[in-house]
Amino acid sequence: MPMTRRPTPEDKFSFGLWTVGWTGADPFGAATRPALEPWEYTERLAEIGAWGVTFHDNDVFPFDADEAAKDKILGRLKEATDRAGLVVEMVTTNTFTHPVFKDGGLTSNDRSVRRFGLRKVLRAVDRAAQMGATTFVMWGGREGSEYDGSKDLYAAMERYKEGLDTVAGYIKSQGYDLRIGLEPKPNEPRGDIFLPTVGHALGLIAELEHGDIVGLNPETGHEQMAGLNYTHALGQALWSGKLFHIDLNGQRGMKYDQDLVFGHGDLMSAFFTVDLLENGFPGYPDGPRYTGPRHFDYKPSRTEYMDGVWESAKACMSTYIMLAEKARAFRADPRVQEALEHAGVPDLAVPTLGEGETVEQFLAADDGFDPEEAAKRDFGFVRLQQLALEHLIG
Amino acid sequence: MPMTRRPTPEDKFSFGLWTVGWTGADPFGAATRPALEPWEYTERLAEIGAWGVTFHDNDVFPFDADEAAKDKILGRLKEATDRAGLVVEMVTTNTFTHPVFKDGGLTSNDRSVRRFGLRKVLRAVDRAAQMGATTFVMWGGREGSEYDGSKDLYAAMERYKEGLDTVAGYIKSQGYDLRIGLEPKPNEPRGDIFLPTVGHALGLIAELEHGDIVGLNPETGHEQMAGLNYTHALGQALWSGKLFHIDLNGQRGMKYDQDLVFGHGDLMSAFFTVDLLENGFPGYPDGPRYTGPRHFDYKPSRTEYMDGVWESAKACMSTYIMLAEKARAFRADPRVQEALEHAGVPDLAVPTLGEGETVEQFLAADDGFDPEEAAKRDFGFVRLQQLALEHLIG
Amino acid sequence: MPMTRRPTPEDKFSFGLWTVGWTGADPFGAATRPALEPWEYTERLAEIGAWGVTFHDNDVFPFDADEAAKDKILGRLKEATDRAGLVVEMVTTNTFTHPVFKDGGLTSNDRSVRRFGLRKVLRAVDRAAQMGATTFVMWGGREGSEYDGSKDLYAAMERYKEGLDTVAGYIKSQGYDLRIGLEPKPNEPRGDIFLPTVGHALGLIAELEHGDIVGLNPETGHEQMAGLNYTHALGQALWSGKLFHIDLNGQRGMKYDQDLVFGHGDLMSAFFTVDLLENGFPGYPDGPRYTGPRHFDYKPSRTEYMDGVWESAKACMSTYIMLAEKARAFRADPRVQEALEHAGVPDLAVPTLGEGETVEQFLAADDGFDPEEAAKRDFGFVRLQQLALEHLIG
Amino acid sequence: MPMTRRPTPEDKFSFGLWTVGWTGADPFGAATRPALEPWEYTERLAEIGAWGVTFHDNDVFPFDADEAAKDKILGRLKEATDRAGLVVEMVTTNTFTHPVFKDGGLTSNDRSVRRFGLRKVLRAVDRAAQMGATTFVMWGGREGSEYDGSKDLYAAMERYKEGLDTVAGYIKSQGYDLRIGLEPKPNEPRGDIFLPTVGHALGLIAELEHGDIVGLNPETGHEQMAGLNYTHALGQALWSGKLFHIDLNGQRGMKYDQDLVFGHGDLMSAFFTVDLLENGFPGYPDGPRYTGPRHFDYKPSRTEYMDGVWESAKACMSTYIMLAEKARAFRADPRVQEALEHAGVPDLAVPTLGEGETVEQFLAADDGFDPEEAAKRDFGFVRLQQLALEHLIG
Repeated sequence: MPMTRRPTPEDKFSFGLWTVGWTGADPFGAATRPALEPWEYTERLAEIGAWGVTFHDNDVFPFDADEAAKDKILGRLKEATDRAGLVVEMVTTNTFTHPVFKDGGLTSNDRSVRRFGLRKVLRAVDRAAQMGATTFVMWGGREGSEYDGSKDLYAAMERYKEGLDTVAGYIKSQGYDLRIGLEPKPNEPRGDIFLPTVGHALGLIAELEHGDIVGLNPETGHEQMAGLNYTHALGQALWSGKLFHIDLNGQRGMKYDQDLVFGHGDLMSAFFTVDLLENGFPGYPDGPRYTGPRHFDYKPSRTEYMDGVWESAKACMSTYIMLAEKARAFRADPRVQEALEHAGVPDLAVPTLGEGETVEQFLAADDGFDPEEAAKRDFGFVRLQQLALEHLIG
Repeated sequence: MPMTRRPTPEDKFSFGLWTVGWTGADPFGAATRPALEPWEYTERLAEIGAWGVTFHDNDVFPFDADEAAKDKILGRLKEATDRAGLVVEMVTTNTFTHPVFKDGGLTSNDRSVRRFGLRKVLRAVDRAAQMGATTFVMWGGREGSEYDGSKDLYAAMERYKEGLDTVAGYIKSQGYDLRIGLEPKPNEPRGDIFLPTVGHALGLIAELEHGDIVGLNPETGHEQMAGLNYTHALGQALWSGKLFHIDLNGQRGMKYDQDLVFGHGDLMSAFFTVDLLENGFPGYPDGPRYTGPRHFDYKPSRTEYMDGVWESAKACMSTYIMLAEKARAFRADPRVQEALEHAGVPDLAVPTLGEGETVEQFLAADDGFDPEEAAKRDFGFVRLQQLALEHLIG
Repeated sequence: MPMTRRPTPEDKFSFGLWTVGWTGADPFGAATRPALEPWEYTERLAEIGAWGVTFHDNDVFPFDADEAAKDKILGRLKEATDRAGLVVEMVTTNTFTHPVFKDGGLTSNDRSVRRFGLRKVLRAVDRAAQMGATTFVMWGGREGSEYDGSKDLYAAMERYKEGLDTVAGYIKSQGYDLRIGLEPKPNEPRGDIFLPTVGHALGLIAELEHGDIVGLNPETGHEQMAGLNYTHALGQALWSGKLFHIDLNGQRGMKYDQDLVFGHGDLMSAFFTVDLLENGFPGYPDGPRYTGPRHFDYKPSRTEYMDGVWESAKACMSTYIMLAEKARAFRADPRVQEALEHAGVPDLAVPTLGEGETVEQFLAADDGFDPEEAAKRDFGFVRLQQLALEHLIG
Repeated sequence: MPMTRRPTPEDKFSFGLWTVGWTGADPFGAATRPALEPWEYTERLAEIGAWGVTFHDNDVFPFDADEAAKDKILGRLKEATDRAGLVVEMVTTNTFTHPVFKDGGLTSNDRSVRRFGLRKVLRAVDRAAQMGATTFVMWGGREGSEYDGSKDLYAAMERYKEGLDTVAGYIKSQGYDLRIGLEPKPNEPRGDIFLPTVGHALGLIAELEHGDIVGLNPETGHEQMAGLNYTHALGQALWSGKLFHIDLNGQRGMKYDQDLVFGHGDLMSAFFTVDLLENGFPGYPDGPRYTGPRHFDYKPSRTEYMDGVWESAKACMSTYIMLAEKARAFRADPRVQEALEHAGVPDLAVPTLGEGETVEQFLAADDGFDPEEAAKRDFGFVRLQQLALEHLIG
């Protein structure tokens, strides 16, 4: 088996500090690994080939830290990342762990909590800018409900909008080079989370005042927890100009949030995700492309100790590199190109109406179309998929 | 047990002709009931209390009918609905049954199919206007894929947009009093359908040129097939001003599309759906309300014969009426009002920032907030839910 | 709305100490409530009408408690339950919280862990007998895997069998009046748990040496997490003579384990669960019945504080009582009896072959059966369901 | 990319005639391909490398065919399979398509239907024996319900048992060399199907009089429709001595029954399925193995015409062969063997109790076990999975 090449900074792989730093506590079990200091992870991440790191405010300083304590800890972290040559590419706020956020941060039914939560977010924005991050992710994991009667759904959207516009407006007013990435999730830890999918977030963004700097941070497993196609979600987000950041990981079907190594979930889907990220849309060579970090938001399985932490981080990158190479070979294969042509894939980029054709002309035109004959077309989608499978495992 | 009152036209109950007209063929079984003529359903629907009917073009005339045949059949149907006092409130096109649409209508990889499909939709729009319908539903059930490689996802969004804008532009140019209702669905009959949820449709609509007359027709079971909260979806659609029509039915979890009688799926969720439709948002007495038809898109179970068809149609309306009465009593109950207050439900309608409060003032303000103390708030959501349950079954 | 009657000991309602004692820590959040001493829950549970309590060993004494410490704590608990008039009806072991069990207790890939785990179970059996429990539940939540290659599946079954037979054999050898209740679950905290459903557990029990005292403790939400029908599972378990205990709660679809209040999940399903528990099988008045505790294994939502804990416990019992009354009225209603008859429900209890009819006679007999005519039977299942709904909410 | 070798009869690949013969009708669409005569498929299947074929009675002769018509058609089919060198390895009955079976065959609420259904099954058994089949599959797709009240669940199990014992007893009495393979499925076409999983079928078989010749025919997608691990199901079935036959295909999550090409669903799971089928249990070189047909029960996607039918059939076999080669290389790799050892996989085959160790000795023994230290074991499951992934795609 050929060795996979080592990751390089050009790959733009980044990791949340909370990923390798996860100690393994789950709803039914205590931590299985010790918690290290934030800077203890950075050197090692750089060593194995990461380019960047990301964190929640409370991954690095305690919930009740004062500004001096934050300065000190963030300074030390910045020193460590600089020394390791790592970019702090994204920062986010934790508005879900402390019990005060048990009904949410921006949409809690308690206004005093909302005010506290919104301030916490704004202060984390300052810290994100200070650390040089260019993306500020907002995962509203506690914004939601278990019981329909416990929320005024219109008010929830109003408060979500108010919160996002306040944060985005503040970013603009401060002149920060930051964009917001919303991270949808259907459920867990709430029974139903507001903005359950990429689509719902796009719908909300369309109503914002400052929606121009608000986009998406779609996570593989989150879309799959609703049985949805992650690559399709990336496609629509890119088409809408809103794919600002990504969270890659693995999930095996509709169950609790697994956060497996990228590729250890639905492998064929991971192949096409990487294909989209690396190769863009086949019919639009100059079309929109995702050029941001390849960010992993995963958890080293609880059965592993510290070796397993680093093996799993390496596995995320190694799998991505392998899939990227295979995706390039797939697109370059003349048999694949022929099969894509046969399947009509390039045809879909051709407008349905002719250039300059009016609806009236279109309705009046006789295409000489015979639906019975057209229905016999063999699209060859299965053969195309088998070619993909052969490239993937061949 | 008290009798439920009879439905009246004021209830605005409507039925798809394809619902009571479903003959029971499924992927593993042949029809169990005969197919009647369209007008054979209308009289009976009026008798049991329906106010309106809806149909796909090919529910009433064959796929290959010429314009004269369509005129004749639609004339006879109009006569029948007029005689029965029924409104034809919505019309839609079938771009999924004929094999020519096996890869979709508006987003087929075959441009000649797209042109044929788009023409079929436009002609159905004319017929919708002719029949007096005010909503034109578009369910793109075949727009999607089983294999990620078989679609250019950017092109698919482009073609979907082109198709919708062409139809919406045509409606405007003809001066029709029609709005388009998109009907999302996550899968079945395609492995992954484009616009899988209400959210994804809102995201697409935001990019349309003629998006002002394009909204949603959310179906209970379709959102639930993705494990999502249907009432939440209605809430976001209403907040976005896009709840143009609804499809009520029942679904029991993540499986094939069941189209059960309304209320025969998740009953507690149906209660809160009706509560939203009848009572609106608690914090916004003058806020947006859904005032359109209460439309049922269900299937009488295949185990039933013709009696069961009518019993099931009556059950849809009867359940809605019962739930509406219970929802009104729930909202009027002083204990409920106290519990809502206790749970902070009205508080969520209060902006997080004070009137005129700037972000600077907000950040500088000292709310005297103690997160540890605030975290001890007992929201009483479970008691509120139990009150809802008591109203529902009490 | 009529008041629901107060629960009494005759209702045999019991609660896990870990239910009201859950402090609200979840995968994304810290505890929202304080932890009380075990005996602080018992008095209150008795006050609100509970008849029994249950616990895991480490709900009451620490993982590393020595025998003297266990004696002291259990003595104090026994005193408290006796004083409150509560039965300790079931005891179970925790082989999932401590990190040593991260790959399971009975089926860990580490034999030294298996030996430790099995000893822990056996010692908990002694304590169960000492406390007067009659059921010993075994939930193998950590017996499973995330990755197929990490387990020898034959060996896993062998070790599960060895473990269960050792425990069951020990119970017999000690003369304890105890039966084992296996609690299946499809996933969480492991990616795939061995014995994912009631069916898989029945399959394993059939291979045991001491299977006569091993049965099931099916949990509402666990079956529903696999999209399965809980009442059907109870039916098959009863038919197999293996319904030894039950865990009632609520779950809203395929997602993380919610452990909601009983009835706050799928309400119609809860109605038929109670109907089966209270009324048995309609065609077998003298057939098998579940006569054990009505045990709640739920979690008070994390948004609640101590009031919410007790409100939620009362809600479990109150909902059960309401459903039981409605189920009795449903079965007694002549319209329902007529509908059941019409639907052929009693007919299913009639053997397909006649009394003494041989297969040869059966094959040779002419029933004069016309499948086309028989296919027109209207079973009236929808009307029957609507009658159930009317009884439930009417 | 290296060519995959051509399938040979030694591979024992077989196909249902209903698979390549599926014409593409689905709940929302008409057939997209013509129906050929049964014998038109056999020659081609042999040409592409199949070893065997299987069929439902009504795949080859009409529902109302008399015995003479059946003789004629089966004679012609036998001639065709003989000429092509194909084995008819399995035969099954269709008790789900005709409307008479709308409430089931063996468990219909109508006894006259049950008698008709049971006769149809028995007659198909005769035909199976006549065609030389060694497995008789029974898929009770219509045995189930949509509404809990519509079935007496005890009676349903009684009738299922009666039916199976009658069929199995008949097979024995006729001296046929046939075993029954039950095929579980959670839902579709019924809302809830009895015997929803491999586990539930094992539970029923344990209660049969003639259970010795009744085993399982587990289908990949059916277990996955309940979110369950198919390879785990095969493992438990093999351990119980009940893996009589298999149905291989692909499914992408919890949705309608997709019947994709084998490997076009969850690819990593397919790898471990083939690993189990080809290599057995790692710790039991002489342990139970599946030696029966590699049977595909899939559907060529509806977007394909006749070319796609044969391409998809070839893809099933080709994928299996590739996975088998990779699974062999995986097991032979010294790095994998080291990782398996490190992960404790062989350890699980070692009994937990020592040879001859009594429970008393075991309880009294001091293993010198330190749970805190043992908890630090790094199982290396993620590295092992990554090795599998590298073998799969490397």
